[in-house]
Amino acid sequence: VREVKVAVLGAGSWGTTVAALAARNVSTLLWARDPVVVEDINTRRVNTRYLADFTLPEALRATASLEEAVAQADVVVTGIPSHGMRGVLTEAAPYVRPWIPIVSLTKGLEQGTRLRMTEVIDELLPGHPTGLLAGPNLAPEIMAGYAAAAVVAMADEHVARSLQRVFHSPRFRVYTNHDVVGAEIGGALKNVIAVAAGMGTGLGVGDNTRAMVITRGLAELTRLGTAMGGDPRTFAGLTGLGDLMATCMSPLSRNRAVGEKLARGMTTDQIVKEMNMVAEGIKTSAVVVELAAEREVPVPICEEVYAVLHQGRSALDAYRGLRRSAAGSELDDSV
Amino acid sequence: VREVKVAVLGAGSWGTTVAALAARNVSTLLWARDPVVVEDINTRRVNTRYLADFTLPEALRATASLEEAVAQADVVVTGIPSHGMRGVLTEAAPYVRPWIPIVSLTKGLEQGTRLRMTEVIDELLPGHPTGLLAGPNLAPEIMAGYAAAAVVAMADEHVARSLQRVFHSPRFRVYTNHDVVGAEIGGALKNVIAVAAGMGTGLGVGDNTRAMVITRGLAELTRLGTAMGGDPRTFAGLTGLGDLMATCMSPLSRNRAVGEKLARGMTTDQIVKEMNMVAEGIKTSAVVVELAAEREVPVPICEEVYAVLHQGRSALDAYRGLRRSAAGSELDDSV
Repeated sequence: VREVKVAVLGAGSWGTTVAALAARNVSTLLWARDPVVVEDINTRRVNTRYLADFTLPEALRATASLEEAVAQADVVVTGIPSHGMRGVLTEAAPYVRPWIPIVSLTKGLEQGTRLRMTEVIDELLPGHPTGLLAGPNLAPEIMAGYAAAAVVAMADEHVARSLQRVFHSPRFRVYTNHDVVGAEIGGALKNVIAVAAGMGTGLGVGDNTRAMVITRGLAELTRLGTAMGGDPRTFAGLTGLGDLMATCMSPLSRNRAVGEKLARGMTTDQIVKEMNMVAEGIKTSAVVVELAAEREVPVPICEEVYAVLHQGRSALDAYRGLRRSAAGSELDDSV
Repeated sequence: VREVKVAVLGAGSWGTTVAALAARNVSTLLWARDPVVVEDINTRRVNTRYLADFTLPEALRATASLEEAVAQADVVVTGIPSHGMRGVLTEAAPYVRPWIPIVSLTKGLEQGTRLRMTEVIDELLPGHPTGLLAGPNLAPEIMAGYAAAAVVAMADEHVARSLQRVFHSPRFRVYTNHDVVGAEIGGALKNVIAVAAGMGTGLGVGDNTRAMVITRGLAELTRLGTAMGGDPRTFAGLTGLGDLMATCMSPLSRNRAVGEKLARGMTTDQIVKEMNMVAEGIKTSAVVVELAAEREVPVPICEEVYAVLHQGRSALDAYRGLRRSAAGSELDDSV
């Protein structure tokens, strides 16, 4: 097999983790804007800011130059928060080699344009096969060597299978799926439902209600995702339900943590100021409510989350609202 | 509205909880075989053996006479473990009034015959509308007044809507679903997956892997349940995914507790001896493996659970086995 070179853009906790996974299989270069982070990784094999407790593989190198990162790359992986994606790709575009696959790690939607991340990539880097790597993947668990599974979603199965080999390891199983839209919508919406689950945890609503919110949340995510062109089966898989569950169950999840803080009465501004990392559910909730209104798809849970995050509604009122909705037939899509 | 009389057979923790819910709406009589339990409920308003921490409603009465329990009943609710269902119904049958609906609370399959509980009811009480009440419903949480949702599954929507009113309260939302097979299979199989999730918790596999096991477990449950005639949408609902999640997340779940004990190296015999209550997943695992083999449906997680419970395989080996299975396309049903 010919040597494949991978560039990972963005040294947040998940970008760094994916770079560490790839570095075990292929030559991998990690781009961070901040030279301090680059120096930290190259000399001490640690990303103190985002993954302080873990040693990175010897083979992983970092650079602060976007040109250096992408110029030799056969695969570009983007681990940039949704609000920064367009800027970084605009800077990187002149140096990216033609035809190579671009893999997104970001689980969010662009505010304003309402675009999925692979759509942003298609706009700035037309002609590249685009897709994503997603699934129930809490970065600190993977760095600690716990087993996990993920999905490479790519329209072209052949490209997907090649990428499978880049990330795969005995403790990190990689499946393929050709349904990019479904995988991407599932990943974005689960962060909003995770905020709802976190509010429930913070309010002490119990596991029955948490399970109900996640179940009805999956129904919402499936309704909207299917209306946007996703395959219903994808939402029941690792990038939909799997990721939703890991995010809602784990105390390591940022979006769940946002919900817990909201339940304690903190405002969105206070929460954002306090957090070192980006919780995509905050911005995505606004985009989801717009998309759902446009398509006339009912998303009562996402609407309550949006109201708490952006309209000053209390978490307790949101849960009261969710309970008030009438109970009819479970299979009726309008409920 | 005419007065409806309900008989609940079986005063285990869930039977008692459902009787307490019904007693708030309609006249309810709870049957327990043991006169000590009956006395306890009638004089002290408590079921010390199974729900010691909760006061039962004044209106709820108990009896040790099956004849008295069912003779006046307009609805019979059966909260008997799967291995006792046939015996109790055989005893009760002569006294049950014709045509009245029979609602099962039991989430298991009969060993030997491999029948679902409503099939056992149909055999012993032919001509009655049969169905079940199921969902993410941990009994102690409902007794403590936490909100929850459940489903009355009945082929006849009219009967289902009447029963909705029997159990419904502001904190206990009842949906309807006409898919009895799907709801019943989901409830039975989720106990087997919950044992797998509990083994994972006991082994400390992390939330990524637990989410993966639950997600792939739901896929198994959906495959087998659909092959048996269930509606795929039911498995993504409250009686499938919802119940599966509550059971896998909650430390109150018995089947999850069985998995945790297996992970600590206890044998099935030791676990059964130690438990005061029945964990349906133990017996159901054997029936599920038989049903799946008969229909040639792959159920790798249920098979591993069966091997640990009944063939002396270790929980650690079971998890190694689950990880070894090859990762292909996520949408490929054979994996």
